[in-house]
Amino acid sequence: MIILGIDPGLALMGYGVIEFDRGRYRPLTYGVISTAARAPMPQRLRTIYTGLKELISIYKPDDIAFEELFFYHNVTTGIAVAQARGAALVASAEYTENLYEYTPMQIKQAITGWGRAEKPQMQNMVKLLLKMDEIVRPDDAADALAVAITHANCLHAKEMYKIK
Amino acid sequence: MIILGIDPGLALMGYGVIEFDRGRYRPLTYGVISTAARAPMPQRLRTIYTGLKELISIYKPDDIAFEELFFYHNVTTGIAVAQARGAALVASAEYTENLYEYTPMQIKQAITGWGRAEKPQMQNMVKLLLKMDEIVRPDDAADALAVAITHANCLHAKEMYKIK
Repeated sequence: MIILGIDPGLALMGYGVIEFDRGRYRPLTYGVISTAARAPMPQRLRTIYTGLKELISIYKPDDIAFEELFFYHNVTTGIAVAQARGAALVASAEYTENLYEYTPMQIKQAITGWGRAEKPQMQNMVKLLLKMDEIVRPDDAADALAVAITHANCLHAKEMYKIK
Repeated sequence: MIILGIDPGLALMGYGVIEFDRGRYRPLTYGVISTAARAPMPQRLRTIYTGLKELISIYKPDDIAFEELFFYHNVTTGIAVAQARGAALVASAEYTENLYEYTPMQIKQAITGWGRAEKPQMQNMVKLLLKMDEIVRPDDAADALAVAITHANCLHAKEMYKIK
């Protein structure tokens, strides 16, 4: 099956698509949808919506998994990221009801076995699990692949977290 | 010209469409797009996106004005409302670049002449300005009409606030 992982963000929204088959993962694509800071917010959200729609139409994921949004110390950033996540959720909901979300701690736990793992550990494990030659860049794309792998593991354990 | 005012919300998103011509306002329609609390968040956002697209396609507003989002004491509510606003902004951005926003204080100032006016005063002024027989219900629709009137006044004074 095909899983699309998403690391929500306004300037950079990370995505990672993996194929998950009989306990094995294979990366199909990964990257970021980037929006220019000088562009007006509505246009940036539209770019995210359109970019994600296109990605979905190409890879036709069975499931889409998001990193869950948590409290931000900077409220303005929190609102911006939540708006971006809203744009991404609309694009996703138009395609499927199979939408899931995982907390950063669940993702770290799933990838490294430890809920407080540091970023370099995470990146290295993503590289190992997907049998890649190099660390995935940018970080947002690596994070998105980690979400996709987490969802694959949760499917395996039959403990998926659907977005309510 | 036609102005669509929007009071963003997840359970109830208020809207109000007015015609503004030579200093006079006329209400064309108003109401709320409501989403069920039991529905999953992605479906609720999709309902907002689809509902707003339909409204826009019917009334073809020249400008769309939003009430600006402020800090919420309840962070979870803040994220939900910001996601809903994101869905509404995408629907709006697909139609026009003429998107504006006003703070609650600017709206109160524009409608009643006083930035700290209470809700009943606001509702009464909306009724008077639009020459309606009764107070507009629900509140969210009255608030949305107030945003539309505020934008009309700002156009008049040539001090519009485009969403950046």
